[in-house]
Amino acid sequence: MAQREAELDGVLVALADPTRRAVVTRLGRGPATVGDLARPFPMTLPSFMKHVRTLEHHGLIRTSKSGRVRTCELDRARLDVVAHWLDEQRQVWEGRTDRLERFVTDSEEHS
Amino acid sequence: MAQREAELDGVLVALADPTRRAVVTRLGRGPATVGDLARPFPMTLPSFMKHVRTLEHHGLIRTSKSGRVRTCELDRARLDVVAHWLDEQRQVWEGRTDRLERFVTDSEEHS
Repeated sequence: MAQREAELDGVLVALADPTRRAVVTRLGRGPATVGDLARPFPMTLPSFMKHVRTLEHHGLIRTSKSGRVRTCELDRARLDVVAHWLDEQRQVWEGRTDRLERFVTDSEEHS
Repeated sequence: MAQREAELDGVLVALADPTRRAVVTRLGRGPATVGDLARPFPMTLPSFMKHVRTLEHHGLIRTSKSGRVRTCELDRARLDVVAHWLDEQRQVWEGRTDRLERFVTDSEEHS
């Protein structure tokens, strides 16, 4: 449980930045080199690399190097960690709604 | 667009902490006072209040005070901001899969 919480912390921190989210969206269309990924962003390559490393550190992307070219690939499963947590919240709300409905139904039956 | 990005940044940062996520889950079952919310957590009330203020600042919860009692309530719409972003990512992946399928189908038709 603690490991899952730490994983969620990391994924959420990694996604809490517009540049990193844009990289995730771009990699959703397929793998890309760091050079191609960096091009649209108005920042230096070292600054951009920090974002790449944050995403890699928290497991959202995998990178591999061939010669001087580093290619990045999205690991969608990490986004599922967030989706799963959101689903759990929804189940909590629905449980609450179910209880409210049961309460209303029971009240009507006994009135 | 920039406003939505800033909103996403804030919501993701607010959720990137196990205490704050636990508060969100608890409030998913219905409103609660700060005192009741704080009880399960091994921290001082001022430390806990920082988490409450972070959640409030980023719009995930609303609080109201009656006498000396502050009650917190979840604003589910803020979680939808994250769910919506995840849906968008899925649409990007599915777009990619569709393009791959079209490519395979086209290749088969022409072979």
